[in-house]
Amino acid sequence: MQKKISTEPYKGVRDFYPRDLAIREYIFKVWSQTVEQFGYERYDASVFEPAELYRSKTSEEIVNEQTYTFIDRGDREVTLRPEMTPTVARMVAGKKRDLVMPLRWYSIPNLFRYERPQRGRLREHWQLNCDLFGSDDTASDVEMVCLADQLLKNFGLTSGEFIIRINDRKEMTEFYASIGLTDPATINILTRLIDRKTKLPLDDFKSELGNIVPEKAEAVLEIINAPDKENEVTKALDRLGLKNVILDRSLARGFDYYTGMVFEIFSSNTELKRALLGGGRYDNLTGLFSDEPVSGVGFGMGDVSLLDLLESTGKLPQIKTGPKLMIIPTDSKLNLDALALARAWHECGIATAVDYRPKALGKRLQDADKRRIPYVMVFGTDEVVKAEYTVKNLTSGESQTGSFEILKNRLVEETEGRQDGLYL
Amino acid sequence: MQKKISTEPYKGVRDFYPRDLAIREYIFKVWSQTVEQFGYERYDASVFEPAELYRSKTSEEIVNEQTYTFIDRGDREVTLRPEMTPTVARMVAGKKRDLVMPLRWYSIPNLFRYERPQRGRLREHWQLNCDLFGSDDTASDVEMVCLADQLLKNFGLTSGEFIIRINDRKEMTEFYASIGLTDPATINILTRLIDRKTKLPLDDFKSELGNIVPEKAEAVLEIINAPDKENEVTKALDRLGLKNVILDRSLARGFDYYTGMVFEIFSSNTELKRALLGGGRYDNLTGLFSDEPVSGVGFGMGDVSLLDLLESTGKLPQIKTGPKLMIIPTDSKLNLDALALARAWHECGIATAVDYRPKALGKRLQDADKRRIPYVMVFGTDEVVKAEYTVKNLTSGESQTGSFEILKNRLVEETEGRQDGLYL
Repeated sequence: MQKKISTEPYKGVRDFYPRDLAIREYIFKVWSQTVEQFGYERYDASVFEPAELYRSKTSEEIVNEQTYTFIDRGDREVTLRPEMTPTVARMVAGKKRDLVMPLRWYSIPNLFRYERPQRGRLREHWQLNCDLFGSDDTASDVEMVCLADQLLKNFGLTSGEFIIRINDRKEMTEFYASIGLTDPATINILTRLIDRKTKLPLDDFKSELGNIVPEKAEAVLEIINAPDKENEVTKALDRLGLKNVILDRSLARGFDYYTGMVFEIFSSNTELKRALLGGGRYDNLTGLFSDEPVSGVGFGMGDVSLLDLLESTGKLPQIKTGPKLMIIPTDSKLNLDALALARAWHECGIATAVDYRPKALGKRLQDADKRRIPYVMVFGTDEVVKAEYTVKNLTSGESQTGSFEILKNRLVEETEGRQDGLYL
Repeated sequence: MQKKISTEPYKGVRDFYPRDLAIREYIFKVWSQTVEQFGYERYDASVFEPAELYRSKTSEEIVNEQTYTFIDRGDREVTLRPEMTPTVARMVAGKKRDLVMPLRWYSIPNLFRYERPQRGRLREHWQLNCDLFGSDDTASDVEMVCLADQLLKNFGLTSGEFIIRINDRKEMTEFYASIGLTDPATINILTRLIDRKTKLPLDDFKSELGNIVPEKAEAVLEIINAPDKENEVTKALDRLGLKNVILDRSLARGFDYYTGMVFEIFSSNTELKRALLGGGRYDNLTGLFSDEPVSGVGFGMGDVSLLDLLESTGKLPQIKTGPKLMIIPTDSKLNLDALALARAWHECGIATAVDYRPKALGKRLQDADKRRIPYVMVFGTDEVVKAEYTVKNLTSGESQTGSFEILKNRLVEETEGRQDGLYL
């Protein structure tokens, strides 16, 4: 006998059994419907990208140690995409001449990172990516925050349940200039350190800060701890009715490509520490590919933190999968008749399956109930001869007997009227 | 200045710009809706699988040379899934005790193969996978073929446009036994050769056949060229109204795991040589993982051949993406007012975007028209002061002026009533 192999998935990734997948599809559906209301169009690409796409914008260390990168047999260096921004920049640059601005694009890619799996950080996860290209107006920054806000509201969250933090890289550059800090490389290193601020003990943070800007550490601390004020974006958001917005000078965002507004949204439940989403404005995302600059603003929102939040706040709806009606023939000889009947139900728009197993009727009824299938239709030779059938509602226990025509009208009406859960 | 990098995707994979993605989503939607009518539930898994999953069922050569397999930094051998069947077998075996049979499961995975890209064969493609587990009854084989047939019909194909070929591994084993061929290994090699029959020159086929079964080549040829007859499955399909079915003794299917019925569907257009879909019955798919056998029947249907067929037969619907209404403020100072108006349209269910660019009005109108956005709303300070706006239908050229309330009622009515294409 052969040694049996494990049924576990690869380390750090998930299997999606029908219930898990239904939840993932629910998330994707809310994402799609919301962003399409704002006029966004969906794109996608392959999970494979040339590794050079990440080499110039990300540090060597990240490409080599935190991504899945390998050499293919054609000697090409391939990376499984760790983020979507370089891909969308490549695609926009590739068809710049045919594309009509402004572009509102979104995607729901699976992304890969090679790191030790931990809560909220998996090796494969899905992310909503939204970008608005070809507009430098503040209104597009404001739109992006409104869209993010609407997404969370469409998952049933109220504005009290999350906080929108805003900052601005240009304004930070001005603050730094005012204390004599103007070297872009130093500011980059400083920004990356500030991005890690909440993850470090305060003393470590201060000592690292002292290493980067030895004589200006206090001045920098004063800037990033400045009390709330307002800027153009927060004023506009206030006018549009968003009250859960704060201007936070300590908000940095890790990526180098941001050049203007940056924002992150957090759950008000401080136990959920990771941002639910984050994004910002970039001046020239396509510089790697061409000299024609394309500016824009965008954000990404992962499925893992969101799912954590929806589960912990009880916001996930009850989602149903599977047939509405299960046909159970009393005798296996009637299995083909059962299939013919199922075909008739399909034509009426009632999702129908047949239990062909030669098991006791009671066992099969029990199984249908266990799966929470709302209706069953049991039939034997008598029913076929008389062309009269019985449909039972497993929730209410009620039964209805009659011709297929009568049952059809009843069931179509009932299933349109009410549903015991959300069918996607 | 930095050297610019290419905007081409990785070799053998596709970029999906919004129009391409809309077509892919249309295909996925027809797939999902059809199979869900039959009571199938969707599952998924990661693209990563332990390589050992493929080692025992596929030849070493295929794993090493035709898949993307690499060693990760934890010394695990990982494969990017080349097919979904081993994954679903792993998942079913992993939760065998909790799962209520019969299971009707489907998935739409992206699959990877490392081979020279050619027409209809890409390095990454998507595939609908359907399986019915836990029933050995012929009716489940028949259901699977009905489902495949319904899928093609739901893409607008008529039964004259495709041919369903059926065969049966058990029946073939009996034929072979009748001519004294009983060694399973020889029958496996023979079956794989017959699977390649149409791809080989007839003489090469005959000579290879002679090598495998030196004294029985003629008898085997007689069996596989036998004129159409019927078996239990084709009789049942005929009874259910499927007339484009033939019993084809030369139909082999490449995979070793089939043990009963096998089937493939081809376009009637003989220029499209690849099968549109194929599948069959297996007795024990979970043997790798456990001693409890799980039998079933299933098929896979790729997106590439299907898209080829739909394009060549003109069956693809016109699919629209993007907003229904574009707001164009005459002055950039009104951009935030435009966003506030867009938010009001979102609340009415009208997908709306704003063109914030400081370009001439005429240029922006032209761009909206080029993108085939059905409605535009141009407004300046006068309109804001009077709270009276104009919405223009770019298709008919008609304009309507009035309060937001009046325009809203009109537009909601119009866009519900007719659409210039299919919004998914």
